[in-house]
Amino acid sequence: MQTRTTITLALLIVLLSFSAAYSAPGDRYSEHFAPLPRRADSLLNPLNPPKVTLGKMLFFDPRLSRSGVISCNTCHALSTGGVDNLPTSVGHGWQIGARNAPTVFNAAVLDTQFWDGRAATVEEQAGGPILNPMEMASTEELAVETIKSIPGYVSLFKKAYKHDKEPVTFANITKAIAAFERTLLTPSRFDRYLAGKKGGLRSEEIKGLDLFVSKGCVSCHNGVGIGGNSFQRFEYGTDEGRYNVTGATADRKVFRVPSLRNIERTYPYFHDGSVWELGTAVRTMASIQLGVELTDEETALIIKFLKSLNATRLTIKLPVLPPSTDTTPKPDPLWSPLAEEVPEDSADAVGGLEPIESE
Amino acid sequence: MQTRTTITLALLIVLLSFSAAYSAPGDRYSEHFAPLPRRADSLLNPLNPPKVTLGKMLFFDPRLSRSGVISCNTCHALSTGGVDNLPTSVGHGWQIGARNAPTVFNAAVLDTQFWDGRAATVEEQAGGPILNPMEMASTEELAVETIKSIPGYVSLFKKAYKHDKEPVTFANITKAIAAFERTLLTPSRFDRYLAGKKGGLRSEEIKGLDLFVSKGCVSCHNGVGIGGNSFQRFEYGTDEGRYNVTGATADRKVFRVPSLRNIERTYPYFHDGSVWELGTAVRTMASIQLGVELTDEETALIIKFLKSLNATRLTIKLPVLPPSTDTTPKPDPLWSPLAEEVPEDSADAVGGLEPIESE
Repeated sequence: MQTRTTITLALLIVLLSFSAAYSAPGDRYSEHFAPLPRRADSLLNPLNPPKVTLGKMLFFDPRLSRSGVISCNTCHALSTGGVDNLPTSVGHGWQIGARNAPTVFNAAVLDTQFWDGRAATVEEQAGGPILNPMEMASTEELAVETIKSIPGYVSLFKKAYKHDKEPVTFANITKAIAAFERTLLTPSRFDRYLAGKKGGLRSEEIKGLDLFVSKGCVSCHNGVGIGGNSFQRFEYGTDEGRYNVTGATADRKVFRVPSLRNIERTYPYFHDGSVWELGTAVRTMASIQLGVELTDEETALIIKFLKSLNATRLTIKLPVLPPSTDTTPKPDPLWSPLAEEVPEDSADAVGGLEPIESE
Repeated sequence: MQTRTTITLALLIVLLSFSAAYSAPGDRYSEHFAPLPRRADSLLNPLNPPKVTLGKMLFFDPRLSRSGVISCNTCHALSTGGVDNLPTSVGHGWQIGARNAPTVFNAAVLDTQFWDGRAATVEEQAGGPILNPMEMASTEELAVETIKSIPGYVSLFKKAYKHDKEPVTFANITKAIAAFERTLLTPSRFDRYLAGKKGGLRSEEIKGLDLFVSKGCVSCHNGVGIGGNSFQRFEYGTDEGRYNVTGATADRKVFRVPSLRNIERTYPYFHDGSVWELGTAVRTMASIQLGVELTDEETALIIKFLKSLNATRLTIKLPVLPPSTDTTPKPDPLWSPLAEEVPEDSADAVGGLEPIESE
């Protein structure tokens, strides 16, 4: 009996050592990070192919805006990292928004949406910009009327929502867009590294990752989004952040920590888009948030790691949109929100129309 | 000898009859129309894969505009028939253009570009909107400086223009965009019909085609573009058309005849985009240009034919654009043309900045 126990124990030790020796190189970071899933499923918005196809078309369709000019893809451009690379976006009537547009890539895996986290899911988020008078400036009624007038859309809604008595609703418009967004996940070389696959990180990138962890960046930028799963105070600029949503003093200048995936492509940085250089952003964050002054070498290595978070491949086929009909509401670029009551709940875009004046 | 001649003649007659009997169904229209080529080659701008790839990226890149907001694809959107489906386009600072944006699809096979034909080729055309202060509002210098600051572009320019000492020039930017446009040809079922292939026109569409020919529409809308190869007077609206280019009295209210390919998708119609319904456009043209009042039935049949001119398939992969660097000029949405001298040669977009005012 004793011999048998000894043998079993010895075998167990051998197996454990073997398993430790052959663990994936990224395993030691598994307490901090998680690789991206293939897609971000949702029980409340189950994905099906017609819904995703439909959502992609709606994502690219400027007819969801009052002007007929602005689509989701205008500010969350899939050619440029899911953002517009502007400090803050240009909306209806060339109004300038108040906060930097966050990337739509991987948004579905984050815990909250918007810089102030006022929406939990992409489903809750997707309707916001459509209705915001500073952005796409439409209404639920106008959006539904527009879609209902286009037979190509109506048949797709019937396929995507076959159990719904009334498939074309504003909620189903936003659900379809969100369904498409749930497929917009961009695995990177870092994910390969975490999974112990070939084509992961190079040696300098691993050094950058080690600095990212040891200096403390990882305390906020972690998880599957490498950010996007906590709120933190960031004393920078005049924006009161989450305080505008909750009214709680503790939320003054508190923002959702942004995801760092595709960070090389989602410049300019911070909630006000005031910083264009990634190095400046990294040093500023280390200094203000961690009280750490990074050397040039440390900054360069961290940037090398951050660039490994870029999408490795991205293939998106441009959708062909179904044509309007004689009953489709006409685009109205000259509509002005000042002529109608502006809803108060438009925190990401404040201020009135600001016509351009000559200097 | 005589027998031999008789036999030869008889054989010839048989062969000719045979050939006539088995001619393609679209052959009888070959005096009016020609099918689209696979691509529109140019001796002056020979196509090569890196040039076309580059041109596609530039076509989608808003960094060719002063604001960083507007790309070629903004007004010539490949998702919506190569146009923006607006009466006239919205440009820099939300300025409203003076003429309807013509489709970029099949533009390369047309004899001239712009409504007034002031450019002969897509190469000559492509730079116009980039430099127009009402549209993308950039300059040659700014565009070149921007591209040179982006290594991903510089290497592609070297591949596309390997015999050029200085590959990144404004002329080469426009040539690359034009090269991509030369691939944007959209064969339709009508082309299959002309070539006598299966999947061509249905019987009602052929009736529409016959009306299109017999009523005289074909006298202007003919050739490979079904339009786009002649200038005609069109007394409609206040626009003086080609007169603004040539100054010749004979060119008063003369416009390039537009191509009718993809016409169902390129609403609204006419140079001022004032007509939304295809039926109204067809009846108005017949009435003003041909002195013919079409019945509802005739109009409906002609529309059936016109819809057969839609692209049968269209697969465009969205390009991934190379990121900017620290030396890339920053986008400037608030730049105003009123602060600088406006070039006089901007015929497609007239008037100053028109800020939106509340009603």
